[in-house]
Amino acid sequence: MPAAMIDGKAIAEEFRARIGVGVADLKTTHNLTPGLAVVLVGEDPASQVYVRNKGVATKAAGMASFEYRLDKDVSEADLIAQVTALNKDDDVHGILVQFPVPPQITQQTIIETISPSKDVDGLNPVNAGRLASRLDALTPCTPQGSVMLAKQTLGNLEGLHAVIVGRSNLVGKPVAQLLLQENCTVTMAHSRTRDLADLCRTADILVAAVGIPEMVKADWVKPGACVIDVGINRIDAPERGEGKTRLVGDVDFEAVAEIAGHITPVPGGVGPMTIACLLKNTLDAACVQAGLDKINL
Amino acid sequence: MPAAMIDGKAIAEEFRARIGVGVADLKTTHNLTPGLAVVLVGEDPASQVYVRNKGVATKAAGMASFEYRLDKDVSEADLIAQVTALNKDDDVHGILVQFPVPPQITQQTIIETISPSKDVDGLNPVNAGRLASRLDALTPCTPQGSVMLAKQTLGNLEGLHAVIVGRSNLVGKPVAQLLLQENCTVTMAHSRTRDLADLCRTADILVAAVGIPEMVKADWVKPGACVIDVGINRIDAPERGEGKTRLVGDVDFEAVAEIAGHITPVPGGVGPMTIACLLKNTLDAACVQAGLDKINL
Repeated sequence: MPAAMIDGKAIAEEFRARIGVGVADLKTTHNLTPGLAVVLVGEDPASQVYVRNKGVATKAAGMASFEYRLDKDVSEADLIAQVTALNKDDDVHGILVQFPVPPQITQQTIIETISPSKDVDGLNPVNAGRLASRLDALTPCTPQGSVMLAKQTLGNLEGLHAVIVGRSNLVGKPVAQLLLQENCTVTMAHSRTRDLADLCRTADILVAAVGIPEMVKADWVKPGACVIDVGINRIDAPERGEGKTRLVGDVDFEAVAEIAGHITPVPGGVGPMTIACLLKNTLDAACVQAGLDKINL
Repeated sequence: MPAAMIDGKAIAEEFRARIGVGVADLKTTHNLTPGLAVVLVGEDPASQVYVRNKGVATKAAGMASFEYRLDKDVSEADLIAQVTALNKDDDVHGILVQFPVPPQITQQTIIETISPSKDVDGLNPVNAGRLASRLDALTPCTPQGSVMLAKQTLGNLEGLHAVIVGRSNLVGKPVAQLLLQENCTVTMAHSRTRDLADLCRTADILVAAVGIPEMVKADWVKPGACVIDVGINRIDAPERGEGKTRLVGDVDFEAVAEIAGHITPVPGGVGPMTIACLLKNTLDAACVQAGLDKINL
């Protein structure tokens, strides 16, 4: 395997340590403890794991962690009331509602209820617009983490051709904006793209964010390219025993690693960066809400 | 010249006629007259011409036109007060502040002062974010007009490769979002793009929005491509006499027209569409503010 593995776990750990220093500094200098509130509706097992992990990481960074667990049958009005209360709570600087929410609740309504200044998921259209307009914004965590990994790996990204496969509001579109800010030439590809493999083969940086297990094949990749795999897909793994599963990305890792210059594994690539960037957003939000400059980490 | 000329003037005229019918309909059915307020600071001759043309077109469509001319030395606070008054004025459904503004005024502050619901220029980050998030939004006029011309010329744009040269908030970035919504594969290129000519030659739709006279040359264009020239540059034209000037686009029109399948002229291409889309935005804004469905033109 000629590709160098991009160790998202190690990079995220080091980043989280720096965030912890920033948090400690903020406490010392301004007696301010950043607080993150996570709201979980229902009992989806995967969501419960995510919420637990976020709480642990928040506390580990020295921040205050608040968890709100609402019944799966909660009304949209009650969830809005909960978010509105958090918008007003001075101890809470970041609010994250764990998605998906049950069908009686419209996700977009909740997104737009979260105050843009506490929107640490960066999904509120105000933050999407500020990002697109190159204004200061809270930026979605997974895109932020993906671009950090590319920068840490390649250094200056200026003039590189980035191809992003997938155009979701959560990942594809904000990744495009962030890579454009790094002066990449940016192509947004998706399910309607013709000759997708040929297009991907022109990429210096290839970001896969489609949610289709191992879709990106070795012959889609230019030799030496940097491949960022945002996908996290659980697939059957009968080779591990009956009923067993395993996680794979959107990239056919084993084969692509023979061609790429750098590649993120799944798990252990982009995933750990997402939580680290959530903590960074919460720290930034706390500073901005207190009228302080953001801390340079 | 093998390329078919895209007659923006004729398409815009026909569109404005349909808008006029919509306006008349709204008056009859709801006794509602859409109103557009244009604010001009100072006496820049080009801006004065733009403002006058907008006023004439607004009235021709049957809408109410309000003009506010402020002294070039007006303070930012006074301009904000003017915009805030217009935000509250029920007869005004659209507000346009003619840019550029003098140096004592921060353009972005004014953009963010305009209520998103009256922001017919589509520059407020709220509208940029709603566009990026595929929510209902007021969309910048020139991008809207550019994409209308491409659709009117080519029909369904799905799967076509669009290359946009230029990444301004006003044109390049919103054009990218709109073409993505049409299911194009979209590449954003700019001054830091390597091998720009090669990249442009891969475009089925090539949008030039850089503000550099005649930058796009014939050998940048794939035979048969649809070329949308957003540039409006005034250059010296000594051949017309001493001190004379003429308008050219960002595309070397004569030479590119030998290669392209379709091409917009300058003037008479995208330009006339911009005012038409401003009228459409004002009509839409009036409907939305009145709690009505937008009129399908």
